[in-house]
Amino acid sequence: MKLSEFYLPTLREVPGDALIASHRLMLRAGMMRKLANGLFAYLPLGLRSFRKLEQIIRQEMDATGSLEVKPTVVVPGELWKESGRWEAMGAALLRVKNRLGADFVVSPTAEEALTAIVREDLESYKQLPLSLYQINTKYRDEIRPRYGVMRGREFVMKDAYSFHADDASLDKTYADMERAYRRIFERCALTVIPVKADSGAMGGSGSEEFMVESSIGDNTLLLCPSCGYAANVEKAACRSDAPTPALSIPLLEKIDTPNVKTIKKLCDFLKIDAKRFIKTLFFRALNVEADLQAETGVQSGCTKETFFAVCIRGDLEVNEVKLAAVLKAGEVALAADSDVERLSGAPIGFAGPVGLSSVPIIADETATAMQGAVTGALERDMHYKNVCAGRDWTAQLVCDVRTVKAGDGCPSCGAALDEKKGNELGHIFKLGRKYTSAMQVSYLDEAGKSQTPTMGCYGIGLDRTLASVIEEHHDEAGIIWPIALAPFHVVIVPVKYDGAVKTAADTLASDLQKRNVEVLLDDRPERAGVKFNDADLIGIPYRVVVGDKNLAQTPPKFEIKRRGADQAELVECGAAAEYLAGKIRVTTQAP
Amino acid sequence: MKLSEFYLPTLREVPGDALIASHRLMLRAGMMRKLANGLFAYLPLGLRSFRKLEQIIRQEMDATGSLEVKPTVVVPGELWKESGRWEAMGAALLRVKNRLGADFVVSPTAEEALTAIVREDLESYKQLPLSLYQINTKYRDEIRPRYGVMRGREFVMKDAYSFHADDASLDKTYADMERAYRRIFERCALTVIPVKADSGAMGGSGSEEFMVESSIGDNTLLLCPSCGYAANVEKAACRSDAPTPALSIPLLEKIDTPNVKTIKKLCDFLKIDAKRFIKTLFFRALNVEADLQAETGVQSGCTKETFFAVCIRGDLEVNEVKLAAVLKAGEVALAADSDVERLSGAPIGFAGPVGLSSVPIIADETATAMQGAVTGALERDMHYKNVCAGRDWTAQLVCDVRTVKAGDGCPSCGAALDEKKGNELGHIFKLGRKYTSAMQVSYLDEAGKSQTPTMGCYGIGLDRTLASVIEEHHDEAGIIWPIALAPFHVVIVPVKYDGAVKTAADTLASDLQKRNVEVLLDDRPERAGVKFNDADLIGIPYRVVVGDKNLAQTPPKFEIKRRGADQAELVECGAAAEYLAGKIRVTTQAP
Repeated sequence: MKLSEFYLPTLREVPGDALIASHRLMLRAGMMRKLANGLFAYLPLGLRSFRKLEQIIRQEMDATGSLEVKPTVVVPGELWKESGRWEAMGAALLRVKNRLGADFVVSPTAEEALTAIVREDLESYKQLPLSLYQINTKYRDEIRPRYGVMRGREFVMKDAYSFHADDASLDKTYADMERAYRRIFERCALTVIPVKADSGAMGGSGSEEFMVESSIGDNTLLLCPSCGYAANVEKAACRSDAPTPALSIPLLEKIDTPNVKTIKKLCDFLKIDAKRFIKTLFFRALNVEADLQAETGVQSGCTKETFFAVCIRGDLEVNEVKLAAVLKAGEVALAADSDVERLSGAPIGFAGPVGLSSVPIIADETATAMQGAVTGALERDMHYKNVCAGRDWTAQLVCDVRTVKAGDGCPSCGAALDEKKGNELGHIFKLGRKYTSAMQVSYLDEAGKSQTPTMGCYGIGLDRTLASVIEEHHDEAGIIWPIALAPFHVVIVPVKYDGAVKTAADTLASDLQKRNVEVLLDDRPERAGVKFNDADLIGIPYRVVVGDKNLAQTPPKFEIKRRGADQAELVECGAAAEYLAGKIRVTTQAP
Repeated sequence: MKLSEFYLPTLREVPGDALIASHRLMLRAGMMRKLANGLFAYLPLGLRSFRKLEQIIRQEMDATGSLEVKPTVVVPGELWKESGRWEAMGAALLRVKNRLGADFVVSPTAEEALTAIVREDLESYKQLPLSLYQINTKYRDEIRPRYGVMRGREFVMKDAYSFHADDASLDKTYADMERAYRRIFERCALTVIPVKADSGAMGGSGSEEFMVESSIGDNTLLLCPSCGYAANVEKAACRSDAPTPALSIPLLEKIDTPNVKTIKKLCDFLKIDAKRFIKTLFFRALNVEADLQAETGVQSGCTKETFFAVCIRGDLEVNEVKLAAVLKAGEVALAADSDVERLSGAPIGFAGPVGLSSVPIIADETATAMQGAVTGALERDMHYKNVCAGRDWTAQLVCDVRTVKAGDGCPSCGAALDEKKGNELGHIFKLGRKYTSAMQVSYLDEAGKSQTPTMGCYGIGLDRTLASVIEEHHDEAGIIWPIALAPFHVVIVPVKYDGAVKTAADTLASDLQKRNVEVLLDDRPERAGVKFNDADLIGIPYRVVVGDKNLAQTPPKFEIKRRGADQAELVECGAAAEYLAGKIRVTTQAP
């Protein structure tokens, strides 16, 4: 491809709102342009890399035995109402009414569509397992799209869905997918951190996210430097750090704490550590699943709000995602002050579990492990001391909802955990029967009995994967593409596209093309410096400079430089095509 | 690919609402499933053919020098307001409000998006011509989606847009695209009829549609059996069939025609032919372009409605699309009866051009060619006779708006035209500066002067192209795929997948795969008849039957049958892979 016949509007200026390297470089290199907030159009250069990523993912999906399908992007709202996500997804779901007033969704994901497709034809256990995937446009109506395609509104996702007769079959496909994901990221030269994850609004049992470390990451990861334990803070556990229980605790005692409304003030007032205090928070939950109702008394029902209290050790925070997962709730948030005062019967700052009967009590394990604690007394200016779980109060449910932090003990080996920020590129889930039950999918087992299949789902965001590759592979001058994703393998830069230099450049381009090497020939009448800058900016792995001086050597030579390398090397013209083809071939073959 | 590892839910029943062969067969063969009215999901079998079509189109677009891009599917409504199509497109445009209340469009086409992308970086004439294309999801909120993917709501379109400094450059790209389209359809083994077409709401000067003949076609085509002239009725012209003018015509005379309100009654009453009558119709137009205002007095302005009368010979019909094109109007429709009575000052049935001053008069050429005609007299129960154009009335604009019919004379050679129904698969347009002016695109020419580029656009609907291939290539038993689009090239049917038959089938499959032949191996424990039926239904070009009897021959043989052929042939097992590979190779190479 001659550059004069290509469309490469590179920019010298750094666009003002581009805060991260990939956003800046994708704009500067002419890979994409912004159509609106969170909406980006890929230009020819960007699309070449995008298609290569698509192909890598397709190959690895095919290798797992998954079959490609193409549902529509716009799907009937009815399907989302069947699954319950029409309500549960909130404002990020782009809802549309058509000309006849019927509800539609611009798909953010396709559990419903794929489940609907499969249920139409699924009859027998002989058809299972079944794994289907698509690589297709998705839309999430993000409230604050940022960082270019890293957090855009429209994006392309590969999403696979598998259907199984039993857990063992789901486990096998899940493991196959995990391996496929590792290979995909490896082929993209991406350093990913697989972490244990919460299954979120998708429902289900097990899930793992594939993260890349990033200063602008919207996920917090807890990583063990010793044993390799890795989890999203939304899922992370830690070793118990409860103090040894005392042998005896005096009786519960009410104490005067005039105007002492915060833990900090209370610590100062009583001269105790925050770890001696039980913090009691009121939450409001939506869409709590029915099976929790009996256990906890928390009311279930679609979009019905319900209140409850959470007790946790005073130095810790409650992680709302862990809490929502425990409750199988669509949404969990701190209750409003007015609700807290109504439910606790006291001003803000004096809540506690002793005598609390207006709402169910959910206790973090750290709260029930405390003997002789201090808590609010549900009365203005009053606290209790010597509070003992089991003796003075009981919880309807004891669970782990604390926010794990750097320094907490690894749940596997006890070493101090590290904390990092990460961006999620992929996510694999064991969904269980959430969708297949709600949408009434069934098949006949070997005994002729009707059964509901269990399900897995597996996503990768293509746009943010591509952006993450640039985040990991760039320098001051521009992108440094791994060969597998490079828009072209080789850029030929004739210092002047004329005479013997032109002939040598054209011959090399043609020799490379015969060897399936993708070549960009910079035939523009620009200064060599301009061409070098553009070549570095767009990040082509190999640059061949064709100049009079080296052509005049015996034998004539080209200057070949690997993008990002310090040194160029001189290679005989006659051997250059095979030399470069060899470099490309080794790195672009599927493993 | 083993069939047991593929997903092929074939159906024996013909779905009730599937009225045409492609709709029926795509459902029965398990190529697709319906998600909602006009929304179809491609299953693995269908997607394999779909991707091949996509690749043929991509290759032919690349060969024209067009570069692939990927704008978003959801685009800002602002862009559509800039171009004026937010209003002009009507209810078929799927409009969405996001969570912040901003307007968006689920793209039915991408003139706006591509123009917006190009205007951001276009600076110099050196960047022109520029041709960009996408193969992407589109949405048209069809009021009555029908016939499967032939007239669906969501579909995939290849749409290309070219930008030029001058008409000569546009003409060249337009001609390149026309050739590319012919090659695309040829590679798909489709018989297309390129016809002259109206440019519709897209605006512009020249355009050509690529049609396939179809009994359910929503286009009427006029075709000359003699010289090859071919046009959509929305554009078709014909030879003048005006009678020789009389030497002298008596003066205008008002005649009593009590209660004679229709042309038929009038013909009976006056004992004249309908060809002697001038029919006067009142129309209402929206969005008439400004440059017509001066010429005709028809009011221009976005969404502003304006009325006018059209005169035509009594035996002819007015084609509203031709009329809208003449007026450069967004929409044209017959006026309501109440408007007609108000504007003509008479009851329905007595309109005529003589003395009509309430609205501008547009005359079809057939009306001004008439001397001594009969027309309504703008008065209850009264007509005029001896009406002469020029003497008794004049038109503000004379043009060709008649609906050409079978039997009318070809405008090129005069032979009687044929009429056929057709479906549009592709459409190429010279858009001119409609979008680049409205959206203020400019570049500097060689003299440093700011100029507006001219533009072309070029679309192909992938889904209906695929369906049309099935319409043209099927029989009672199922689809007969041309090799270039076949989901698999060869289906191997072992009569029983066991013992020596299994070994021979597996060996052939492996030998074919080594030769890049795509093989489906029917390893199901089904009766041979079931397998044969499915193979015929899904339309795989070559079927190889592996059976004990032919394997027992010396040398052992396979039975090979071309789908759709009458006879099978026996081929030696050792030669079969190369024999089949040879057949496939010849037909799948790009021309």
